[in-house]
Formats: sequence, structure tokens, C-alpha cells
Amino acid sequence: MTSRRGFLTGAAGLAGAAGVLAAAKPGVAKPGPMAPEFSFFGDHQAGIVTPQQRHAYFAAFDLITDKREAVAGLLRAWTEAAARMSLGMDEPSGNPDQPPPDSGEALGLHPARLTMTFGFGPGLFIKDGQDRYGLAARRPEALIDLPRFNGDQLIPARTGGDLAVQACADDPQVAFHAVRTLARLADGIAQFRWVQAGFTSGGRPGETPRNLMGFKDGTMNPATGDLALMDQIVWVGDEGGWMRGGSYMVARPIRVALEHWDRMKLAFQEQTVGRHKVSGAPLGKSRESDPLDLDAVDADGNPVIPENSHVRLGAPAANEGAQILRRAYSYDNGLAFIAERWPPWRQGMQIDAGLLFICYQRDPRTGFVKIFENMAKFDMMNQFVTHIGGGLFACPPGAKSGRFVGQELFEV
Amino acid sequence: MTSRRGFLTGAAGLAGAAGVLAAAKPGVAKPGPMAPEFSFFGDHQAGIVTPQQRHAYFAAFDLITDKREAVAGLLRAWTEAAARMSLGMDEPSGNPDQPPPDSGEALGLHPARLTMTFGFGPGLFIKDGQDRYGLAARRPEALIDLPRFNGDQLIPARTGGDLAVQACADDPQVAFHAVRTLARLADGIAQFRWVQAGFTSGGRPGETPRNLMGFKDGTMNPATGDLALMDQIVWVGDEGGWMRGGSYMVARPIRVALEHWDRMKLAFQEQTVGRHKVSGAPLGKSRESDPLDLDAVDADGNPVIPENSHVRLGAPAANEGAQILRRAYSYDNGLAFIAERWPPWRQGMQIDAGLLFICYQRDPRTGFVKIFENMAKFDMMNQFVTHIGGGLFACPPGAKSGRFVGQELFEV
Repeated sequence: MTSRRGFLTGAAGLAGAAGVLAAAKPGVAKPGPMAPEFSFFGDHQAGIVTPQQRHAYFAAFDLITDKREAVAGLLRAWTEAAARMSLGMDEPSGNPDQPPPDSGEALGLHPARLTMTFGFGPGLFIKDGQDRYGLAARRPEALIDLPRFNGDQLIPARTGGDLAVQACADDPQVAFHAVRTLARLADGIAQFRWVQAGFTSGGRPGETPRNLMGFKDGTMNPATGDLALMDQIVWVGDEGGWMRGGSYMVARPIRVALEHWDRMKLAFQEQTVGRHKVSGAPLGKSRESDPLDLDAVDADGNPVIPENSHVRLGAPAANEGAQILRRAYSYDNGLAFIAERWPPWRQGMQIDAGLLFICYQRDPRTGFVKIFENMAKFDMMNQFVTHIGGGLFACPPGAKSGRFVGQELFEV
Repeated sequence: MTSRRGFLTGAAGLAGAAGVLAAAKPGVAKPGPMAPEFSFFGDHQAGIVTPQQRHAYFAAFDLITDKREAVAGLLRAWTEAAARMSLGMDEPSGNPDQPPPDSGEALGLHPARLTMTFGFGPGLFIKDGQDRYGLAARRPEALIDLPRFNGDQLIPARTGGDLAVQACADDPQVAFHAVRTLARLADGIAQFRWVQAGFTSGGRPGETPRNLMGFKDGTMNPATGDLALMDQIVWVGDEGGWMRGGSYMVARPIRVALEHWDRMKLAFQEQTVGRHKVSGAPLGKSRESDPLDLDAVDADGNPVIPENSHVRLGAPAANEGAQILRRAYSYDNGLAFIAERWPPWRQGMQIDAGLLFICYQRDPRTGFVKIFENMAKFDMMNQFVTHIGGGLFACPPGAKSGRFVGQELFEV
């Protein structure tokens, strides 16, 4: 049996390199047997400015305990498990008369750049009017109850959660194992509320991945290597109290009506997005990296990038400079009974797929909410996409070694 | 825009190498940007003795046409699409006034060793007593209606199908795109019946992957490099008529009660499987590759490998030499409402996961049926696993260039 430590080439020495790795150009890194691991501990949680891994497993949990110490104990156990799994696993103890402490499906696997990013939903602070854990007074102002957006069709069973984790890795089995392990540790304290697995695919290194609509997705994502920009838009600053160094995560599964989209003319698809499908260039330009020129007009005086196109409505210039850091994955949940919203209005079993939209920001009020309020009303893409669930989670700063994630919240 | 051809280093020259690759030790190959593609055309269909890719997307379709020519036309269109996608894609034509011919999410992606393996269910030959396409007389004897096995709990919506495809690739987006493309081509002729995505993870090259029960899975799989053995157990011979050079595929989603399994003592898990969990060695041995000694007894005269263990009941020695070629993937379908079958009999939302069991054989009567009839009755593992769907499919031989897969069936 080869433990995952066998793959490491000086894990301790690599731990300090996480910042360097995070400074690379955003995009999807290639999986590889020698990819370095990320240390769980640090000023910020991993999995936010970390270059995006190929697979994600998102899980939201409801707390079912009434004991504050049980919540803190769970977060300590989760921290220890996450730190252990992120760096490679030793063999289980192997006492034949006990259930194995680890379910075992990741034994021998490379950690595959596993990151586990924890977040706290509003329900940790107050739920149904109850301050279950004496934490209500410490709820951050920025951890708002998300407003209802135009077009929202949120399914309660896929919405909310008191605790959340975004597990990402280049190996889906490593990400699955990570979340399964958390659920086992939560027995009697928290239980699954909703989960969503996701995947993304890059071409060559540095290429922007395509979503299931066939368009490059994330071209204008802010550069994680710009540390000053990250401090400005991603990381909570001195205003945040115990959240300083943390970030706010919005996670929303967005169903995409692929059967409808696939029937649209190429020109209409491109006008909807505001970019060319093959190259990813803004309409009227030739390269993906060409800047958006929102003022360009055609011979008739009409804007080259349509007024209601996705890329225009999401651009910082259209949102008083507001920016978020996107970290989205495609999802596919197999077949579901679906009534098409397009002639001939067929009904039947179709692929139920879309985008697990995840973004991070310093303050959702000036980030996702600011940008999406407008998009929810006017984006041409809304003909094809529906937000069906999700939540907002306060992701505390990274834990220092020996402490647990979110410990600052529990120390008064 | 970089087309996928940009990655190829002499695709034509590599096409002939598929046999060499197929002769490698079974196991999960590492994904890599330079991995060669497989040619769709050949004596046998790809995706059977092909070293297992990391991801699978299985889809079964119901035919909804009454026209034989429409079925043949669909198979021709599928063949052309599969050949194109397996070798790398050119850019779409890009007529702005038409829907794009390709949905586009695989543009720029490496083909990632994509294989697409097609199979015919009994319903292609006769359905509800109707010989819809004049093919009933050509139904192979080996394409039986699978018997009901002990413990079967088959869900109709996840069972059967007139046509099936197993799409496998090292990139989940490539596999998804392949099946989505088939479904688009089938518009009005066939529609989805059931689908199941799956994944598998290997450690170092040649290591046997672990399933979600945490055990190495596939140790005793016959060596695909033994061409004589493949001719004996996988490929249909002269007895098969139009199926000569083909194979029979059994595909069954098997739910695993992970929450139950995780609570079992290590010793009991190992007795159930008949192997040690960490090493994969047969009970009483130390190396995964050590041969099964079914005659070994302990000091009390009891068999070291229990009578009802999974590995004993599946061994060729316990089945008059019967062997199948397994090609299984783990699956995870997110949360489902599950009533645990173990104290304290909790009920709630739990991970609905298991194994997408796929196997190939020359004749299912002397392959899967022969082996599984016994296992379904006596395997200790049946406490933890439930067959919830699936089907048997006749996979015709490989298509020659210019012909379509299964064309022999339609030529009388």
C-alpha cells in the first residue's frame, strides 16, 4: 500500500508556496501526478484565489444540534480532517474490530490539489428567530438575507444551509471523499441540506474553460495575481471584525435550458452573450483578450455589444466598478422530466444540467447583489437560464495551525 | 481558436496503435495532454478492451420511429459523429443564420481518449411483440432477456433501452458533449431512456482503482493484453453471424448503502469482500497480486476466504471457469431520500451513490448470467448493494471506414 504521502516532494516546503501558485494567471490548471498540494492553514482559506481545480463538490448542511460546543467541536474536527486530507493521507489504523476511521476510497490517491473552503450561512447566527448558539450579535452585516431576484425559482431543498463547504480537486473521487468524510464527522450535529458536484475543462494551460453553452466563461475574471485587487474586491478588510481576511461566497445552481439554447442561431447566441462563440472575442473584435468596447456602434448607430447582452450587464463599467471573483463549475444531474419552453414545447426526459455558479467577494451588497440585480432584470440570457437554489455564506479567514476555521467567531 | 486537431501529433499514424495500447496492463491510465486518441474504426469497437478512461457517460435510448431507414440513418449519423469526435474536432461552420452544428463545449479540448461504444437492446429487434424494423429474425440468441436475479430491484425508468452508448474519456466535459451530440442527432428518432455518469480514479499507473466502498476493484480482471483470452471470453466468434467481432455489454447501476457499509467493522468488511482493504491482497496474503487460494483453511479448519465472500463467488474457479471483462465506474447522483437499513434506521437526505457496473463478454449466458446468478443469492455484499436498473446490449463489431456501426445487421 502506498500512502498519499509517497507522492509528496517536501510538503512542508511547498506549503509556503501556495501564495505563489495562487498568483498564477486564472484558468484551469492541468491535473498531473506531481502537482503540489495546498496547505489548509494560512491567512486566507484555500480554494478562493487558488487556481481552479477540475472538479468541485459543494455541500450545504443544516445544523441539528442546540449546543454551541457541538458546533465548535464539529468545526475543529472538520478543520483537522481538511488539513489531513489536503496534505495526503496515512494509512488508517486498521483495528479490525472497529469500523475503519476513513472510508478508504481516496487511499493511495494523490491529493489532487484538494482544497476545502468553509462558509457560514445566516442560520448559524439566527434561525426561525432563534439565537441557537448565542452568535446572533456577531452576525456580520454583510451576511445579508439575499433578496429575491427577478426570475428566481429557488427550490427550498436546494437553497440555504447553516454551514457549507466547497471541496475542489483535480480528481472527482478525492472531492467526493472529502465531503463524505465531513458528513460522517457531522453525525448527530449537522446533516446534508443540498449538494452539487461540478466539473470544468480547460484546453491548454491558461485557456478559459467553456461552459455547457459552448462559450468561454470567465474571460473577464479579475486576475488573482493582483494582490492589491484581491484585497480590494475579495478579502474582507478591517471593517469585518472576526471576518477580516475572509470572503463571502455566493453559490447558486443555475439550470440552463440546453435544448432551447442549441436551437438558437449562432448570431443570436453571440448577441446574447456579447462575444463570439469560437474565439471568445467581444463582438466586433477578433481576440478573446481584446477589451470590451461598450461604446462601439455599428453603421446604423446601434451598439455592437447589445444593451441587454450578458457581457455588458456584467461588466464593471456597467456596475460602477463592481467586481466579483467567479469560480464556477458546470453540472450535470442526469435526466429529469422537462417541459421545453420553446416550440414545439416538447416534454420528456432530458439532461438536467447547468452551471454551479460560485463567486467570492468582500461584500455581497457591493458584489453579487449589485451586479446581479440588474442582470436578473435585463440579461437576454435569462431566456435560457434559471437560478434554482443556492445561498450566501460567510467564509472566515484561514485557520492558523492548531486552531480551527472560524474559531474567532466562537471567542468572545 | 485552436481546434482540437492542434493537439494531434499524427493522428493517422496513431490510429493503428490502438491495439498496442489496448494490450497494456488493465488499469486506469493517467490523463495527459499528449495522450493519443483512438480511431473509431476497426475490427472491434473501441471502449471495450481500451484501457479504462477516467470518466464515463452511459446513455440508453428508446427508439420512437417506426421506420427502419430512420434507425439505420441514425446509426450512420452517430458513427460519423463518433468518428469525428474521437479524432478531434474542427471548428464549426459558423453560419450566423443557423444554429451551430455543434454545441461547442468541447471546442479546443483534447479528445481525451474519447471512445463511444454502441449497443443494441432487445427492443431494436422486438418490442411489445412488434417487429418494428423487420429485424426480429436477426436477433442473436445470446441477446436474451436477462432473467430476474435474486435481490433485483430494477426501476423501469433506469432499465432497458433499444440503443445504448458508453462514452468514455479522461475529461468529463468531452464525454458529456459526446452524448449530448448523439441526443441532438436522434431528434425525432430516439430519446433518452436512462443515463448515468461515472468516474474512476487510479493512483500510480497500473494501480487498481478503489471503488466507493474503499476496496480495490478489478484486481482479477482478465488481462486485455492476452489477445487469445479476449477472443475466448470477450469477442463473439464465428457463432455470432453479424455479431462476429462484437461483444455483449451488461450495464447495471448498483446502489451502495455507504452509510451502512461505513459502520461495519474492518474485519467484517474484509470478510465480505474476501480481501484486505488497504493492500487489496486476498485474506491471509500480503500482496494484491497474490493468487486467490480458495482451499486455504485456518487453524479451526474454516476457509480463510469465507464461503460467501464476494471474491470467492466471483472467481472463475467457483464458476466453471467463467470470466467477464469488467469496466466499472463509480457514480454519485447527489442527495436522495434514503431510509437506512441499519440501526438506528435513520431516514433523510443522503448521498445516492454506487457503482455503474459495466462488463463485456462473448455470451452473457456463460458470462454475467452464469456468474451473477450465484452471487445474487449468496454474496455477503448483497447486504450493502442493490441492483437498481440496467440492461443487456449487443455491441456489434467495429465499423470499417465508410460504413456505420451495426451495418451488417441491416444488410440482408
